[in-house]
Amino acid sequence: MQTLNVALGDRSYPIHIGPGLLGQTQWWDSVRARPLRLITDDHVARHYLAPLRTLLGLDEAAVRILTAGESQKSWEQAGAILDWLLQTHLPRDGCLIALGGGVIGDLVGFCAAIYQRGIDFVQVPTTLLAQVDSSVGGKTGINHPRGKNMIGAFHQPRLVLADTDTLKTLPRRELLAGIAEIIKYGMLGDRAFFDWIEAQLDALLALDAEAITYAVHHSCRMKAEIVARDERESGPRALLNLGHTFGHAIETHTGYGAWLHGEAVATGLCMAADLSARLGWIAPDDAQRCIALVARAGLPTVPPAGMTPGDFLQRMALDKKVAHGKLRLVLLRAIGEAVVTADFDPAKLGETLASFCSPQADPRVRTPAP
Amino acid sequence: MQTLNVALGDRSYPIHIGPGLLGQTQWWDSVRARPLRLITDDHVARHYLAPLRTLLGLDEAAVRILTAGESQKSWEQAGAILDWLLQTHLPRDGCLIALGGGVIGDLVGFCAAIYQRGIDFVQVPTTLLAQVDSSVGGKTGINHPRGKNMIGAFHQPRLVLADTDTLKTLPRRELLAGIAEIIKYGMLGDRAFFDWIEAQLDALLALDAEAITYAVHHSCRMKAEIVARDERESGPRALLNLGHTFGHAIETHTGYGAWLHGEAVATGLCMAADLSARLGWIAPDDAQRCIALVARAGLPTVPPAGMTPGDFLQRMALDKKVAHGKLRLVLLRAIGEAVVTADFDPAKLGETLASFCSPQADPRVRTPAP
Repeated sequence: MQTLNVALGDRSYPIHIGPGLLGQTQWWDSVRARPLRLITDDHVARHYLAPLRTLLGLDEAAVRILTAGESQKSWEQAGAILDWLLQTHLPRDGCLIALGGGVIGDLVGFCAAIYQRGIDFVQVPTTLLAQVDSSVGGKTGINHPRGKNMIGAFHQPRLVLADTDTLKTLPRRELLAGIAEIIKYGMLGDRAFFDWIEAQLDALLALDAEAITYAVHHSCRMKAEIVARDERESGPRALLNLGHTFGHAIETHTGYGAWLHGEAVATGLCMAADLSARLGWIAPDDAQRCIALVARAGLPTVPPAGMTPGDFLQRMALDKKVAHGKLRLVLLRAIGEAVVTADFDPAKLGETLASFCSPQADPRVRTPAP
Repeated sequence: MQTLNVALGDRSYPIHIGPGLLGQTQWWDSVRARPLRLITDDHVARHYLAPLRTLLGLDEAAVRILTAGESQKSWEQAGAILDWLLQTHLPRDGCLIALGGGVIGDLVGFCAAIYQRGIDFVQVPTTLLAQVDSSVGGKTGINHPRGKNMIGAFHQPRLVLADTDTLKTLPRRELLAGIAEIIKYGMLGDRAFFDWIEAQLDALLALDAEAITYAVHHSCRMKAEIVARDERESGPRALLNLGHTFGHAIETHTGYGAWLHGEAVATGLCMAADLSARLGWIAPDDAQRCIALVARAGLPTVPPAGMTPGDFLQRMALDKKVAHGKLRLVLLRAIGEAVVTADFDPAKLGETLASFCSPQADPRVRTPAP
């Protein structure tokens, strides 16, 4: 078990990571005496709701179970949750518990952010993606037909409990999607961690408790350090979006949910590495290493069949990272050193898009630019 | 013209106060080059929209005119505004302008708080209440059938332009409602200011530019000092709610809009002063001075006919200020010295309620407890 303290002044909070945490009472000392409401989805509820309800002494009226899936991150569902909180008279010193993956965390966090102008919430992430990514940084939000996470707020949890045992019931695809984000952390800021992932990939895929705990802790720590420097995403925090601009374009193009976020990011990481190599910023071999690692993890390295460079450019132009009309991308100066820049040759972007969108593409592994 | 700088670190912003500001371009230098959207209501639009549109070069598609009234502060209207912002592709570095009273400021501020996780907004308050109160403190929000401002966020404006000339077109009732909040500032924290209001009440009611500018500036400064010490309302900020717990009960009981917020607060101020006197915390004469000033301003000093002590107690139990099941009130230790406390004799609260709710009550002026 490892604990990471996310240092954000009076909004600081601990993340506890390790196996078996959900069976232990001591983590709840700071909130258990307060009025609680728990929100989860039907998939997660099946495995983890009953023991947690018993542990916290929650009656049925204090629990809301949503249908699993990204479509729940909607304005309508957020409104229904707020209605429920008001109907059940949750006071301002009450606390929400988000038991589930990123969808539950984002949605419940958003409701906590705007209920009575902000109340506490606890995240219990049950997917690898949520454990390594959405549990740090305070980003909450919902989707809109015109874009993902277009409505939201920054709101820090009071506590995060990442029980790595919950990953045992996670569908394989979702596990891999989380691995993609871990690879992202190595690529964007820590070459030694990238090397470690290359060496430990099999242990991670086998859910070795020590390897998973280390990978989650290290990823969260990297994210926490970046977030502490830039809580509101005006500067260095954008580095965390490595692979995401390409990835969001894929997710929007395919419709939410067809590709998992982590799968889209995985392909985005490959595209960012490829573009960095075409710009001469990293060696072609380094791009190849990144793409090979993504492929070895069983993650997609090319966009869906039929998606064109035009599809990418159109979606990317709507991205939140367009400032003053100029597309900014996160690219690599080295493995372990990402930069945010609008200063790149757009012709090279065109080459990357053309190469990755080629209908003749090998569907799993790409060779980077020479 | 006076300028007040609200000091909140990287969220600091200026409030410019005085006559004629809306005809001047220089205040807009920090935002005019950015993509802008302006939201107002049909009453305000009639008087002030056209010149501001010209000044800022806004085309019709960048302006949204709502029906005037508190009912606009709804989840549905907020959703419609967010749809509009996304449909018109307002980027993250865009800026919203709220031209209107508290309803427009709260609603537009809330949309700015959650659009793409928070964008800039400018407040152009056109009511006295909005100028002295809602333009400082970053409270934004909407109503819910179960309570006022139950959904919202803290989000600071980038700039506030309080043109005191806009008060000339304000209905008399709304002007008086703003005076109530000014009296509140004297009562809660500055006896000398209370004395000044007593002396200058006629000038204020006559909209004397110098008196109004001074009163708005002084009220905003007092609020800003309190907010700077307590941005998220955990401590001293609650002092600003003097009169509000009683007032909210009246507003909820009568239905939103029947009583203006400031009218309900005016009566709440009288009730808080009365209770403070019954508790022996202030002299009966001081309570009488407060009530007499409220009455002289033409504001209501008693709750609506038919409202019972039970109505008050039921509404007050739902108030956001109930922490750990205990009702906290803002009461007076002196004129100019308010305290937040749950430590009062509930029997005295019962006496105040019984006295103010008496069906035999003189409808305008009350004598305080002996």
